[in-house]
Amino acid sequence: MALSQASISSSSSALFSQSRFNFKSPTSRGQSVAVPAKTIGGGWKCVATPEKTEFKTQVSRNANMGKLQAGYLFPEIARRRNAHLEKYPDAKIIPLGIGDTTEPIPEYIASAMAKRALAMSTREGYSGYGPEQGEKPLRTAIAKTFYDNLGIEEDDIFVSDGAKCDISRLQVLFGEDKTIAVQDPSYPAYVDSSVIMGQTGQYQKSVEKFANIEYMRCTPDNGFFPDLSSTNRTDIIFFCSPNNPTGSAATREQLTQLVKFAKDNGSIIVYDSAYAMYMSDDNPCSIFEIPGAKDVAIETSSFSKYAGFTGVRLGWTVVPKQLHYSDGFQVAKDFNRIVCTCFNGASTIAQAGGLACLEPEGLKAMHGVINFYKENTNIIMETFNSLGFNVYGGTNAPYVWVHFPGQSSWDVFAEILEKTHVVTTPGSGFGPGGEGFIRVSAFGHRENVLEACKRFKQLYK
Amino acid sequence: MALSQASISSSSSALFSQSRFNFKSPTSRGQSVAVPAKTIGGGWKCVATPEKTEFKTQVSRNANMGKLQAGYLFPEIARRRNAHLEKYPDAKIIPLGIGDTTEPIPEYIASAMAKRALAMSTREGYSGYGPEQGEKPLRTAIAKTFYDNLGIEEDDIFVSDGAKCDISRLQVLFGEDKTIAVQDPSYPAYVDSSVIMGQTGQYQKSVEKFANIEYMRCTPDNGFFPDLSSTNRTDIIFFCSPNNPTGSAATREQLTQLVKFAKDNGSIIVYDSAYAMYMSDDNPCSIFEIPGAKDVAIETSSFSKYAGFTGVRLGWTVVPKQLHYSDGFQVAKDFNRIVCTCFNGASTIAQAGGLACLEPEGLKAMHGVINFYKENTNIIMETFNSLGFNVYGGTNAPYVWVHFPGQSSWDVFAEILEKTHVVTTPGSGFGPGGEGFIRVSAFGHRENVLEACKRFKQLYK
Repeated sequence: MALSQASISSSSSALFSQSRFNFKSPTSRGQSVAVPAKTIGGGWKCVATPEKTEFKTQVSRNANMGKLQAGYLFPEIARRRNAHLEKYPDAKIIPLGIGDTTEPIPEYIASAMAKRALAMSTREGYSGYGPEQGEKPLRTAIAKTFYDNLGIEEDDIFVSDGAKCDISRLQVLFGEDKTIAVQDPSYPAYVDSSVIMGQTGQYQKSVEKFANIEYMRCTPDNGFFPDLSSTNRTDIIFFCSPNNPTGSAATREQLTQLVKFAKDNGSIIVYDSAYAMYMSDDNPCSIFEIPGAKDVAIETSSFSKYAGFTGVRLGWTVVPKQLHYSDGFQVAKDFNRIVCTCFNGASTIAQAGGLACLEPEGLKAMHGVINFYKENTNIIMETFNSLGFNVYGGTNAPYVWVHFPGQSSWDVFAEILEKTHVVTTPGSGFGPGGEGFIRVSAFGHRENVLEACKRFKQLYK
Repeated sequence: MALSQASISSSSSALFSQSRFNFKSPTSRGQSVAVPAKTIGGGWKCVATPEKTEFKTQVSRNANMGKLQAGYLFPEIARRRNAHLEKYPDAKIIPLGIGDTTEPIPEYIASAMAKRALAMSTREGYSGYGPEQGEKPLRTAIAKTFYDNLGIEEDDIFVSDGAKCDISRLQVLFGEDKTIAVQDPSYPAYVDSSVIMGQTGQYQKSVEKFANIEYMRCTPDNGFFPDLSSTNRTDIIFFCSPNNPTGSAATREQLTQLVKFAKDNGSIIVYDSAYAMYMSDDNPCSIFEIPGAKDVAIETSSFSKYAGFTGVRLGWTVVPKQLHYSDGFQVAKDFNRIVCTCFNGASTIAQAGGLACLEPEGLKAMHGVINFYKENTNIIMETFNSLGFNVYGGTNAPYVWVHFPGQSSWDVFAEILEKTHVVTTPGSGFGPGGEGFIRVSAFGHRENVLEACKRFKQLYK
């Protein structure tokens, strides 16, 4: 017997009673509706008894987790900020610590996301799982906007929920038996994800470093570019330019050296270009501007600091087809497998926003946001310059790196917080090479940046 | 000198020229605008030369990646589907393979996301980084809706971009030196993420299993609940109920056995409840309905199959404070660290959608979606029943598990695809215990499900 349309015409409400999940509809609130006796209104049925035990499983704690120091930097700063607020409940705290965007998403871009969200409620506009690697139009637009004429193609681009998440996925890709190098100071996620993956030894308190990580010191003395002649070979080299936290950007000549260094050593560079659009000087915005880089480099980037997408979550990673392991296996193939197994694609709504970012009107709007923050950066730089500090960064990045020679970063952080209610970031949180520095973020409302600078002037006048 | 408002009043356009990133604005398209000589219109400046090398780095491929078999199941099915479409370009393919939602997101929920997206373009409505663990109102609503009276609190809930992603993060949390058990058959992400983390040995082709994984056979013979008396102890037990792919749900008595088994062995259960709202029978919807489960269990779940969020990406994981490693360390503390270091929170727009899902109108709308798919499930079950097949699942899950005794799953998959243009999922893709079965997903437009069933009837009449 053929299944007729009639035989399945039972309405949703007829089948409704099949579902165990019960709720009170808005119209029946408070009324006696057909809710089974044991069911909690609005929730699951639950039959649990109170319990008080001190039970321990026999599962050992991941020893690598035990190696990590204190909290991840920014939650730690948030904790101190909250403690400060408890001490001074009326203080007007100005957050220039974590690099968190504050300006609204340009309307053109936000509207594209709203439109996509609404379309998801229509049959024509609905989409389920997208490709794990990202929607093709966005991959194409990223390749064209950021890597045009660099030999990077749409299928080299893996769209993600942010560079930070991709850094961890890359570490899972590389595996435990790899060695890494990082700029010192650098964004803490490189080191912490390496520790978690078991690539490092224990933390060495005396030198404030993890064993088995190569820390490439970047200071004013070397123009914030590491001395590669004294750098040990590692499998992976994390390199961020424009750099977080120092704000410095590597020149074409320096990056050419870096690529040569990686080639000579057979290393893979993971190049973090999350701040590339802040570049003012004539430095490369992508590692792939350097000839030969596609043989040795992966690049990760993000919409977070360009379009205010810190909460929206959208980034990308470029894994060129030319990049191979020592056995000749294509790195991109394994990364694709990681993306398919450990990730399910960035939110389609965020991807609609990303696509709008890369249209002419979106690009213009992004530049508006970036230039606003660059104005903030100038204000902060001028302030510290006028107070006689040695100030670095700022020109190519939304971070100002202020030197307090001979002082402890956390002490300076604490003093600034205590006396001005401004949250900064202690340089030593980015590695021992950051000791004696404070990172001041230019992400903030204009009046807050001005007020913070006024307070800095009062403190250091 | 105090920094005056005037001294920073330079406009965005004045600073504009600082940025290296150039583009043609929509109004100036085709005109000669101030673009430096070497700049590519609309993109970065790029100075790369063509290159052709066969360079290999000296980085060894992660040996664990090499253990993985073929592609991840669903991309592999997509590949075969595409090959079929090339062979039959005019075929009307009906996808009942991957469990991908097809019905629009209820308007109430989509509107909440659109509203949040638009609010992000206003100063009042903008938010940057959210808490890595999720926004508090959503965590509270999840705890109240799904775990009311079960002793699960808001801070036990970690909001994520989906259960699949959390499974990988949990594996990173547990680390390489752990052993796992899985239902056989089961969702492939458990096994594959375990392989990637290095918890397993090589794939044993003769038995179609990875060495060092405990496969808990679930067949019609044991009512799809494993024989725990013959199950070896592992650190972690992945357990999905209602199960994907078999559609079976464990009873309260069975889950009580499972919790006792975990307690006796000091194991941690990772309970996947992504289909719990499909439960019709009187089985627990959460492992935490079982007394003592908070000592031994983590639960992961998702909005994907409830509200059509497969592309939106939103899920959650519950790590109770009562769960401890053998050394007494709280598991939740380490998971929090993973979430803060390897993840940056789910998209705020998706979270707005999740919050709307859990409001009375949203819950009602979600039930509408779920009941629609349950109607589909009934149609598919009735079809295969009428054709004389042994049919399992369906009652408590949107999956129908059809037995083809003595046949190869991939052969049945291929025959169905070849003769009906319907994509199903071969049971053996979920583990050797799935051999001889086909999973038919109930996610599909009604007319497609009806048409597929008509074709099944023609094929098997």
